[in-house]
Amino acid sequence: MPERSPLAPQRFPDLPPLAGVKVGASAAGVRYPGRKDLFLAELEPASTVAGVFTRSLTASAPVLWCRKALGGGRCRAILANSGNANAFTGAEGIRALEASVSALAARIGCAAEEIMVASTGVIGELLSEQKIVDALDATRNSLDARNWPDAAAAIMTTDTFPKGSTRSAQIAGNTVTINGIAKGSGMIAPDMATMLAFVFTDAAIPAPILQELLAAANERSFNCITVDSDTSTSDTLILCASGRVVHPAPKSARDPILRPFKRALEEVLVDLAQQIVRDGEGARKFVTVKVSGAASARAAKRIALSIANSPLVKTAIAGEDANWGRVVMAVGKAGEKAERDKLAISMGGVRIAESGMRVPDYDETPVVQHMKADNILIEVDVGVGRGKATVWTCDLTEGYIRINASYRS
Amino acid sequence: MPERSPLAPQRFPDLPPLAGVKVGASAAGVRYPGRKDLFLAELEPASTVAGVFTRSLTASAPVLWCRKALGGGRCRAILANSGNANAFTGAEGIRALEASVSALAARIGCAAEEIMVASTGVIGELLSEQKIVDALDATRNSLDARNWPDAAAAIMTTDTFPKGSTRSAQIAGNTVTINGIAKGSGMIAPDMATMLAFVFTDAAIPAPILQELLAAANERSFNCITVDSDTSTSDTLILCASGRVVHPAPKSARDPILRPFKRALEEVLVDLAQQIVRDGEGARKFVTVKVSGAASARAAKRIALSIANSPLVKTAIAGEDANWGRVVMAVGKAGEKAERDKLAISMGGVRIAESGMRVPDYDETPVVQHMKADNILIEVDVGVGRGKATVWTCDLTEGYIRINASYRS
Repeated sequence: MPERSPLAPQRFPDLPPLAGVKVGASAAGVRYPGRKDLFLAELEPASTVAGVFTRSLTASAPVLWCRKALGGGRCRAILANSGNANAFTGAEGIRALEASVSALAARIGCAAEEIMVASTGVIGELLSEQKIVDALDATRNSLDARNWPDAAAAIMTTDTFPKGSTRSAQIAGNTVTINGIAKGSGMIAPDMATMLAFVFTDAAIPAPILQELLAAANERSFNCITVDSDTSTSDTLILCASGRVVHPAPKSARDPILRPFKRALEEVLVDLAQQIVRDGEGARKFVTVKVSGAASARAAKRIALSIANSPLVKTAIAGEDANWGRVVMAVGKAGEKAERDKLAISMGGVRIAESGMRVPDYDETPVVQHMKADNILIEVDVGVGRGKATVWTCDLTEGYIRINASYRS
Repeated sequence: MPERSPLAPQRFPDLPPLAGVKVGASAAGVRYPGRKDLFLAELEPASTVAGVFTRSLTASAPVLWCRKALGGGRCRAILANSGNANAFTGAEGIRALEASVSALAARIGCAAEEIMVASTGVIGELLSEQKIVDALDATRNSLDARNWPDAAAAIMTTDTFPKGSTRSAQIAGNTVTINGIAKGSGMIAPDMATMLAFVFTDAAIPAPILQELLAAANERSFNCITVDSDTSTSDTLILCASGRVVHPAPKSARDPILRPFKRALEEVLVDLAQQIVRDGEGARKFVTVKVSGAASARAAKRIALSIANSPLVKTAIAGEDANWGRVVMAVGKAGEKAERDKLAISMGGVRIAESGMRVPDYDETPVVQHMKADNILIEVDVGVGRGKATVWTCDLTEGYIRINASYRS
């Protein structure tokens, strides 16, 4: 059992009950003996759904299924297992998925397309749908509006802590709530890097609007984190809305009544995304990279990710080394507009370099002190425009190598 | 002093004298006390030159200088120091460079633009041109047609072995020779990752043709290697031709009389590039990634580099784990056309997966054996076209982290 990440939050947050949503978990024995590895959420009829998935061209069977099923905009259940990703399993993998979906749809009395599926674990091994079907009744029996801690634990693979977040917001004077759980990347046995996040609300939002809200919030949360630049075949983010709180219907994603909800949704996703980084393999430091003055927001994000993905920047942080030369290198390789003589770099709020060279009176002492903390801040002003972005990552340590170089057996 | 890489060649090769080319080295004390850190090559008048440089947008002062000087197509000298990259040093860095170039040009009696310069070492610290100017006479006194081992050693930073290569070829029945030296990435004190390669021939090839030949050969050698996906501010590859062997003048880069020369040039560059990978920080395994069946050669290379740059693939190799699921992941994230159900993956020549899933009778035994060797082969057939590419990399070990996370002091 891996040690809990030193960057983990104190405890799992209190996720309140959500009208129209129940969650549960049970031990199906997919891979891990003696632990809950099957997650189920069930929603009342008329719940809407939105989803964002991996861009991998070798996506898993569940991702292919969800992309198709999402077209209906309705969701009665999310079924997710840990231990086996059902990825690169060919036609057999699709068949296994459809068998367990049919079994669940029959029990709920809904269409197969109203069930979203996710799997995380080993790639390339066949998933036993029988184990999942056999566990469905026990899992349904565990369904409860308060079962969030169990639910968050069931989707873990080698995560060192369960991840949850909650916020409430007003929609035209009516209080709605958003609960989310997620798993991240902690990879001991192979290929456990998948990110899964399931988010629920009792607000009443039509599927097309929900999809717009989710895509926008994802762009500023999960799409702003990186642990090691690798992309899973199974990354899945699903948002379901039970519609049990009565409020005026939003006219579009830009309807002003949705502003507080959008902010709360983004907060939940950012919180979950940051928890994933805090549980990155071998992570000892949580790193915030802020880029300003880029040619566009998109350029700023590419530069920020170039810094956050650079093994040389990440190993320097692991070594508590204020090695700003590697930040210059990472800006230079990002491929976005930059001018050496306009670049400014700060660490821990201390300006280190500007106008193409180190500041004349640079005193390393406060920066050296900052590098010893758990939370590291790198700020870069590119000096060529007004584009901004913030991304989050962790350091690259010997622990990462130890975890990922270990044998699968 | 770091231990010599376990993947190093037995010894430095015998580089024969080249008519019209002398090389030398001396100890200028730029950063490393008591070792030769200044490299000089001098060429007879009328020598031609070609160059390829980093694409970094925060390129070093020497790179900016060479890009401009190269326009003349003539080269009388290459001057290179190790210990300080003269990068991110603003106008002061340019001034320091110009001062040492002027001093050397006066001694040789040539134009400043006939001198190419390279620097490798710490980023962001001012380079003392006085140390370099003071060492010029001693360096010139060391010039000799046979001084290649000293020359190759002088450009090392934290390389664990000097890198050289030689080939000869016929141009219309006349024997010409190509000698090259290079340094790679071995990074203890910071930012020593720069790749430098200086290649010389006694053939007579006009600068524009030389440039075409170099760019093409670079594309299949140095542009096919990766240690950690980071790009230096100072990467420099220069090819000089003294023209001392009399042979018919080639009409263009496509002139058939150049075919054997092109092959020999590519062999020298591939040899040097592979030596750089064999000296990658912490490397214990040399990895060849071959991709076939991609939509184009360019797509094949992007997929191959996605595999070769993946931390998860590289740590699996370090752990001697035949983790082909991570190869699937890396193909999927490359962003090039791929179809899961047409993908085939082999390791060590053994077919592991095809048609979207593991081969039914897969026996891991020979693959497990292969993973224990020093030289690892990963082959991927994408199955969608005829594009091919081969790239080389090394594994990602705890040694890499130890080296790069160490303090600069």
